[in-house]
Amino acid sequence: MAKPSLRASIPPVAIIMGSQSDWATMRHAAETLDALAIPYDARIVSAHRTPDRMVAFAKGAKAEGFKVIIAGAGGAAHLPGMTAALTPLPVFGVPVESKALSGQDSLLSIVQMPGGIPVGTLAIGKPGAINAALLAAAVLALSDDGIAERLDAWRAKLSSAVAERPKDDA
Amino acid sequence: MAKPSLRASIPPVAIIMGSQSDWATMRHAAETLDALAIPYDARIVSAHRTPDRMVAFAKGAKAEGFKVIIAGAGGAAHLPGMTAALTPLPVFGVPVESKALSGQDSLLSIVQMPGGIPVGTLAIGKPGAINAALLAAAVLALSDDGIAERLDAWRAKLSSAVAERPKDDA
Amino acid sequence: MAKPSLRASIPPVAIIMGSQSDWATMRHAAETLDALAIPYDARIVSAHRTPDRMVAFAKGAKAEGFKVIIAGAGGAAHLPGMTAALTPLPVFGVPVESKALSGQDSLLSIVQMPGGIPVGTLAIGKPGAINAALLAAAVLALSDDGIAERLDAWRAKLSSAVAERPKDDA
Amino acid sequence: MAKPSLRASIPPVAIIMGSQSDWATMRHAAETLDALAIPYDARIVSAHRTPDRMVAFAKGAKAEGFKVIIAGAGGAAHLPGMTAALTPLPVFGVPVESKALSGQDSLLSIVQMPGGIPVGTLAIGKPGAINAALLAAAVLALSDDGIAERLDAWRAKLSSAVAERPKDDA
Amino acid sequence: MAKPSLRASIPPVAIIMGSQSDWATMRHAAETLDALAIPYDARIVSAHRTPDRMVAFAKGAKAEGFKVIIAGAGGAAHLPGMTAALTPLPVFGVPVESKALSGQDSLLSIVQMPGGIPVGTLAIGKPGAINAALLAAAVLALSDDGIAERLDAWRAKLSSAVAERPKDDA
Amino acid sequence: MAKPSLRASIPPVAIIMGSQSDWATMRHAAETLDALAIPYDARIVSAHRTPDRMVAFAKGAKAEGFKVIIAGAGGAAHLPGMTAALTPLPVFGVPVESKALSGQDSLLSIVQMPGGIPVGTLAIGKPGAINAALLAAAVLALSDDGIAERLDAWRAKLSSAVAERPKDDA
Amino acid sequence: MAKPSLRASIPPVAIIMGSQSDWATMRHAAETLDALAIPYDARIVSAHRTPDRMVAFAKGAKAEGFKVIIAGAGGAAHLPGMTAALTPLPVFGVPVESKALSGQDSLLSIVQMPGGIPVGTLAIGKPGAINAALLAAAVLALSDDGIAERLDAWRAKLSSAVAERPKDDA
Amino acid sequence: MAKPSLRASIPPVAIIMGSQSDWATMRHAAETLDALAIPYDARIVSAHRTPDRMVAFAKGAKAEGFKVIIAGAGGAAHLPGMTAALTPLPVFGVPVESKALSGQDSLLSIVQMPGGIPVGTLAIGKPGAINAALLAAAVLALSDDGIAERLDAWRAKLSSAVAERPKDDA
Repeated sequence: MAKPSLRASIPPVAIIMGSQSDWATMRHAAETLDALAIPYDARIVSAHRTPDRMVAFAKGAKAEGFKVIIAGAGGAAHLPGMTAALTPLPVFGVPVESKALSGQDSLLSIVQMPGGIPVGTLAIGKPGAINAALLAAAVLALSDDGIAERLDAWRAKLSSAVAERPKDDA
Repeated sequence: MAKPSLRASIPPVAIIMGSQSDWATMRHAAETLDALAIPYDARIVSAHRTPDRMVAFAKGAKAEGFKVIIAGAGGAAHLPGMTAALTPLPVFGVPVESKALSGQDSLLSIVQMPGGIPVGTLAIGKPGAINAALLAAAVLALSDDGIAERLDAWRAKLSSAVAERPKDDA
Repeated sequence: MAKPSLRASIPPVAIIMGSQSDWATMRHAAETLDALAIPYDARIVSAHRTPDRMVAFAKGAKAEGFKVIIAGAGGAAHLPGMTAALTPLPVFGVPVESKALSGQDSLLSIVQMPGGIPVGTLAIGKPGAINAALLAAAVLALSDDGIAERLDAWRAKLSSAVAERPKDDA
Repeated sequence: MAKPSLRASIPPVAIIMGSQSDWATMRHAAETLDALAIPYDARIVSAHRTPDRMVAFAKGAKAEGFKVIIAGAGGAAHLPGMTAALTPLPVFGVPVESKALSGQDSLLSIVQMPGGIPVGTLAIGKPGAINAALLAAAVLALSDDGIAERLDAWRAKLSSAVAERPKDDA
Repeated sequence: MAKPSLRASIPPVAIIMGSQSDWATMRHAAETLDALAIPYDARIVSAHRTPDRMVAFAKGAKAEGFKVIIAGAGGAAHLPGMTAALTPLPVFGVPVESKALSGQDSLLSIVQMPGGIPVGTLAIGKPGAINAALLAAAVLALSDDGIAERLDAWRAKLSSAVAERPKDDA
Repeated sequence: MAKPSLRASIPPVAIIMGSQSDWATMRHAAETLDALAIPYDARIVSAHRTPDRMVAFAKGAKAEGFKVIIAGAGGAAHLPGMTAALTPLPVFGVPVESKALSGQDSLLSIVQMPGGIPVGTLAIGKPGAINAALLAAAVLALSDDGIAERLDAWRAKLSSAVAERPKDDA
Repeated sequence: MAKPSLRASIPPVAIIMGSQSDWATMRHAAETLDALAIPYDARIVSAHRTPDRMVAFAKGAKAEGFKVIIAGAGGAAHLPGMTAALTPLPVFGVPVESKALSGQDSLLSIVQMPGGIPVGTLAIGKPGAINAALLAAAVLALSDDGIAERLDAWRAKLSSAVAERPKDDA
Repeated sequence: MAKPSLRASIPPVAIIMGSQSDWATMRHAAETLDALAIPYDARIVSAHRTPDRMVAFAKGAKAEGFKVIIAGAGGAAHLPGMTAALTPLPVFGVPVESKALSGQDSLLSIVQMPGGIPVGTLAIGKPGAINAALLAAAVLALSDDGIAERLDAWRAKLSSAVAERPKDDA
């Protein structure tokens, strides 16, 4: 089970998603935060099936102590945008790959928000989930030197892991 | 100003839209209902800028006496789907043509709802607004012979208005 | 075999589809109606291969006692729109996922109807089939308290089935 | 007014279109046939607004003496495919440019016909209308040497009209 | 091996394709012509790899006795259009499904011909190949009563093969 | 001329763009920051025409005192992603509407970043520019109560400015 | 009139295009070559309307003394690919913006060439025409120091022309 | 391991790619160069993960002795365009097929470069990798008769390998 982090009593990041099936994508956000030792809380909050839960979560997120919200959803993906409408916290959206349209619907439903309510949108699928975590880390790093250092280290490792030449059997 | 119909104390149709700018499209729904003598109430209910108003409207729509909701929105259009999540009434969605993507984002944001929360989606723009009104009429006609007759007459006129041959100066 | 419902002598919903292969999608509409105890009749009515059958069905649907028509088709999907042209009943369209274009052709062929002839269009594939049934139920519920109650219960169950947190092994 | 050709008592080509507004596109088919001295009859036959007229036309087209049908329509364009379902004559489809989607919907609605009912589809808009006429001419030329000669001459002129070098003030 | 038909010394239909890999699609055109007892000759004629062969084929096709050309190609599919530029015969194009873009590139490369050089384009993939054969048959049927009768029979069988109701185990 | 803000000696936000022509879009980010009394510095930094300037800017941005970078670009838009590769600061990308493809190329070039280097992407064009500013404000508000208050006020005004009903002459 | 350059008896670059209307785009290639003092010859060579001229040109281009071919075309754009099939010279393709599909058809028709026959494809429209000229220059610069110097100067000027800050009245 | 060619001390072609996973595509470029006996050096140079390496490579490529650069990348593919911004050498880009969007993002990110910085773009995936090698060969052949001869032979073989007729069991 996706756990609330044990490392901190007040996790700064909430990872929310529209359904259990989105977890296959969103767990990559969680794992990236784990690698950066940033606590988070992962919850299922469906804009369509549990609108009251969504409203309660989004309205209370700041008071709960969250600083950044990562929201993943697919298809006519309304969770990131609706959450952004209900909280002043920064919201980062992850378009989950959909069956028929490969996430093109998810992407447009999340990124094309009207002026006034922003959702910082990442790439479709796993790369987007990883990057939502890294972007949350970059935001938190602005006022947390520990996170800043761990993020720098993570990026340095990312860079140094790139081989000079391609391998045939990789 | 878009008026609540004077013809009936309890209009069966609500026309809601995300912003004033959507009225240029949604007025075609209103005019079509006018032509069918079906009362309606037209309101601006923004999912993103007035989420509380949206929740209140959608949760109360059935109790207010509405039977069908027509919802128009553009871009990352969340109003139709969120309304459908909050009411058992049938919701018909009109994708308003957006600037950069010509309503392709509006269409996908409205039509690609997950299993469980339906939005009956019409065409992008004016034809969709007209058709949302006609579809609402078809639903109401199931239990209102007057509407059924007026709808039949409207359709007969639509058909008989088609000329036999194209005209050069039309 | 997809059966005409045994529960009622006059099923209010017709589920029509362009070919046997569409049944893999449209059965989800049937199963959803089953879950709501709403009788239906499922038929193959091809706009292209059996145009006379389609015309006869659509023109006679109201007299047969149907109240709502659910029509599924793929590719250059003409069945929903042609049926809507031939009946005053509300028609809900389900774009079946097509091989090469993943249902983008089906979606546009169904949703982009000209002003005058509406088709309330649902999502591509299985979610759309489920939702067409739910939308039909919402329409019927306007004048059938039993259906209204069962639909409310169905929606409440949908909501309560959403777990609080994602599970790794789900 | 688009005239039935005076040159022949039995025009071999029917140009049909879904609405008066399609004539701005389809007149290019008519003008091309005029240039080839091939008689035609141009009619408005709406699949959606006048389905009975469409069925009657398509079923009777062969008996009327037509040999080729050119059908233009826009949006959820069902006229070419439905006509093809109702006649053994070759049907050539012209996707009329639509407002929001620039004819992408028209194109897919016409070209993506299921195996069994063919529509030979031309380009979106004016080039497609011209080419539908030329393709009809190529078909008729198979058994009419006069048309074959005029088509050859038309093509030779097309070729010889191509300048060697671009002109700045063209 | 795809055979020149043994049934007739002068096959009226040429089936050409850009590569061996297109045969998996184009054989459906051949099989449909077989079913209609219409002789054909199937050849590989690559616009890009064998341009001289293409020019020779297209320029000589009419003199060889062909009446209709069916051309299939994928990706930047130039074979149908280039053939149409080099012969007065009617050319029907089949967009072969491509790997990355699922035939959207093939479709646009074939259908979007400029005014002057028509290619009657069918659906992407197998349905398009079947339909190219049927459209060729419809053209030949204009002056061959035997083909007309066989085509009518084929269409009647297509229609009568449609079951009344969907089957669960089909 | 787009001015570095006079209100603060160390502006926390950098607005960078690929060319002068992007300013018509990006000035909406600047004006929104003005409305929130958040200082910024607006610069032209072309990834393609001034790659050295881009590298210098991005590598030095944190040391210069910037906290958030807003980057706008169109077409094959590489500026946001390349900047994100060269700074640990959060980068928000604005896809500028392009001529031929209406910003679809800009959007995909910005949002589809590989896992490791995030760009929080906003909507195409003006709404995206406004929202990039608001998202930057939300990030800064996490550690600046003044900004938090002004952002709340801005959002409250956004909400209260929504009329109850549409007006015909708006 | 687009002139063969007077500066050299043997221009190394051929600019070909499908029609006079493409010159509005392709003249930007010519002007860029002018700015680099690279002679060129601009010709109309239509793959569809003058296939023989195209074959003759492409087969003879190397012997004529050309080193690089720039080919622009729109819609089902076959000129660049067919030319590449007929010459060993490097061919650079410019997708001209088309009316209905904004050059998406042109782009795919040019870039999606099968393995074996390459076309180096540039952006849709004017930027692509400029860049085709620059790419031709880069190729010629490999063995012509004068061109290399002029290209370096051109690029340096491009870079130095980028202002530091955006201007409101630009 | 992808080897620097042993055949020459100074390989004229660099094949660079954004990650190890791109090698599955880009090895087809390498193999094609092998077939033409053209030495090359294959390297991983990530624009996003190793921007310094990219800048160093691109700025030094000409001095290292490279004449042509082939760059492959996927998603928001910035490597080809950024390399082109940093070198006067001709750069040919290969859009690697991406997971969610099948390389449409890669293609637009590479081909839609602004006027001033060209990338000659090939097809998505394997055909594009093969063709990048062939285009590089065509460029090198302008001043290397050996390569010209080997390229001619390769093309002749390509052509002669095309069978006359399709085979059922191919």
